[in-house]
Amino acid sequence: MSAPSSPADVRPALRVAVLGCGVVGTEVVRLLTTQADDLASRVGARLELVGVAVRDVDVPRDPVVDRALLTADAEGLVEKADVVVELMGGLQPAKDLLLRAIEHGASVVTANKALLAQDGPVLYAAADAAGVDLYFEAAVAGAIPIVRPVRESLAGDHVRRVLGIVNGTTNYVLDRMATEGLDLEQAVKEAQSLGYAEADPTADVEGYDAAAKAAILASLAFHTRVSLDDVAREGITSVTADDVAWAERTGYVIKLLAIAERGETAAEDGSTTAGIQVRVHPALVPAGHPLAGVRGAFNAVFVEAEAAGELMFYGRGAGGQPTASAVLGDVVSVARHRVLGGRGPVESSYAALPVLPASAARTRYQMRLEVADRPGVLAQVAAVLAGREVSIESVRQTPKGEGRVVTDVAMLVITTHTATEHALRSTVEAIEALDVVRRVVSVLRVEGA
Amino acid sequence: MSAPSSPADVRPALRVAVLGCGVVGTEVVRLLTTQADDLASRVGARLELVGVAVRDVDVPRDPVVDRALLTADAEGLVEKADVVVELMGGLQPAKDLLLRAIEHGASVVTANKALLAQDGPVLYAAADAAGVDLYFEAAVAGAIPIVRPVRESLAGDHVRRVLGIVNGTTNYVLDRMATEGLDLEQAVKEAQSLGYAEADPTADVEGYDAAAKAAILASLAFHTRVSLDDVAREGITSVTADDVAWAERTGYVIKLLAIAERGETAAEDGSTTAGIQVRVHPALVPAGHPLAGVRGAFNAVFVEAEAAGELMFYGRGAGGQPTASAVLGDVVSVARHRVLGGRGPVESSYAALPVLPASAARTRYQMRLEVADRPGVLAQVAAVLAGREVSIESVRQTPKGEGRVVTDVAMLVITTHTATEHALRSTVEAIEALDVVRRVVSVLRVEGA
Repeated sequence: MSAPSSPADVRPALRVAVLGCGVVGTEVVRLLTTQADDLASRVGARLELVGVAVRDVDVPRDPVVDRALLTADAEGLVEKADVVVELMGGLQPAKDLLLRAIEHGASVVTANKALLAQDGPVLYAAADAAGVDLYFEAAVAGAIPIVRPVRESLAGDHVRRVLGIVNGTTNYVLDRMATEGLDLEQAVKEAQSLGYAEADPTADVEGYDAAAKAAILASLAFHTRVSLDDVAREGITSVTADDVAWAERTGYVIKLLAIAERGETAAEDGSTTAGIQVRVHPALVPAGHPLAGVRGAFNAVFVEAEAAGELMFYGRGAGGQPTASAVLGDVVSVARHRVLGGRGPVESSYAALPVLPASAARTRYQMRLEVADRPGVLAQVAAVLAGREVSIESVRQTPKGEGRVVTDVAMLVITTHTATEHALRSTVEAIEALDVVRRVVSVLRVEGA
Repeated sequence: MSAPSSPADVRPALRVAVLGCGVVGTEVVRLLTTQADDLASRVGARLELVGVAVRDVDVPRDPVVDRALLTADAEGLVEKADVVVELMGGLQPAKDLLLRAIEHGASVVTANKALLAQDGPVLYAAADAAGVDLYFEAAVAGAIPIVRPVRESLAGDHVRRVLGIVNGTTNYVLDRMATEGLDLEQAVKEAQSLGYAEADPTADVEGYDAAAKAAILASLAFHTRVSLDDVAREGITSVTADDVAWAERTGYVIKLLAIAERGETAAEDGSTTAGIQVRVHPALVPAGHPLAGVRGAFNAVFVEAEAAGELMFYGRGAGGQPTASAVLGDVVSVARHRVLGGRGPVESSYAALPVLPASAARTRYQMRLEVADRPGVLAQVAAVLAGREVSIESVRQTPKGEGRVVTDVAMLVITTHTATEHALRSTVEAIEALDVVRRVVSVLRVEGA
């Protein structure tokens, strides 16, 4: 086979600036350096690393980072680059630097989910106005190629629903609770000792991280600008070992899901408004669903599209190397577009669907009640549900537990057909008021069924 | 929110020709028609369907296909299009029409796996020479976006191995054997009655379809031109209900896998040649592996990359609508590139790795033997393996079965560490020659462990 022609050798190199040199930044610099020939071949021009912006140039670093490229002058650096890769994280100065890069005509790649979820619309608009690419594959689900497939492969299709396991920490925690019978606190401690959870795990266990990714996924899937404030959020802190054990007994697995789906709300005059709902909460997923098999710290995004049907994308959601791999894929794409003199498929928001309140979402529910262990209890509970038009899919009644003294209490597990959150809340209140009900132990949504 | 600007309205439309109007062609025409505004917004220009080439213009068709667009003159049609979508299937005239389209400067999209596996190198070279895009997302794993992620998202990474369930028919058959205890013939009949298998199921059950997709996947993942002739192929016709039951008992699921991986062969002088191996065969997959959970007629491709780690792409591998969705995604990409005046990331074959013989592949094996049920048998068998440097990972010995008359026969299940096919074959021959061994019941590779 003859040597391939090398247009890369005759075209001027593209200047690449990297902002931030932590774990991911260092891996990106390593790949840009060690894979230079491969990258040039794919892009059609060489990629020249012109600088790495850091807070302190004197900190010792991995030897793969040439010290001569380090600079504390990020503002100056972005002005002399064709492609700016932002890996510093945080809202500022990342936002101003990206806007400055875009104004100067650079294409930008970022892994900054917090910034995109907060100020995505401003950045998208600036990139549109300047006619440059804004790519962010690494911001959602780390190394998993999900942004590109949703934005490009499904460009001729309509997405109905996205269900994502997008936070590896909480998935690890829930997985350990399920497989080892740990309680939440034990599992979080284990995750911390393995480096899967931060010393302060709030952003993960309270669902903030997942909510930011949900906003980005929803924006992409529904061509609508969704910000973090639009996302209804509930973390896993109220999930008990008992919930996890009962889930398994009834054929489910508990997962923290980021959900974006089409829906509608009905007004009192009977008119309806179509829109999307975006929410993050723990949910029961049927054991046979592909998402149920996502173990440990892995991530997965399940997409239901009209023509394509069901799709799932699975992989590592975090880590320096996986994230760097996703960043490099984006760098190749935007660099290739510059060689061609343009930009990739345009990030569209033409649908501009309204974001509906989470209370309008219709889901199935499973509620677990401690009730008096005597005849007629189920009839009373069922009457409450029927009165609120919440219909029952299945019921399971069990004496409360082996080895316990209490013998006059039974556990009643009721799974409903779809109902609005509003109807469900009023139902739970009415059930709590029944004499025969000792306690509503838990109420969990059922998804993916 | 203000109305988005519409550059699509001022640019000249791109002319799209569709070759073939079967199930997929009709769905593509439907999407091009009903989603015209969405597509224009994403591409930056309107897509004008200028013709649909068919063998017989007088056959009754779905009303979504405007009869005025039908033509029997495919040669003439491809010359007046900017984007040619080939959905006729088969080697000819598809190949000549695509080459003619490319020569005339059109970008081409095809779902024709047989043609790509056979003549891909010719088509890639023609597209390179003409500077146009050749896209084929629908040719591998239907609606699952796998080509684009491998070609673009992993552009800065190195793929080590690809394991794919890429034939829905055989996956359905094996799944039914596992879950319902059917034998192969029963499961194939059921698949035929449901439309999952052809009247003549040879292309599926003998692994020809999977081999074509393996060639395409290997070409993409390793930047090397791999053709169908390079793929070692074995179908599922020798898989018995007994094999499937034993797989489950030992913690595995049997799947027909398309495998492409890096490897090396050693010459007698001790020098080694690095290259890739591409093969299709049934294999034991550990029950906890993500591929094991791929049920029914679904497809999935599992990728191991150096930086990204493990990734899996899951979805429907066939069907008119899923395939049309993948085709439209490609149409949007190549059309967008034309609006920009260029083409997408270049299909590279710069690695040009040698394709090594399948006999050089190193895998784990599980062999199942009927042996005399008396002491010392295992020692004799183990000595044979040790003599050929095939090391044993685990052994399981069981009386042959309940409810049978035979009582002096035991089943010995041996799982090995990795060994070459060559070493394994010689081992099996030697084991068969042992007096204490009645029969080598089966030898299956273990993958994904």
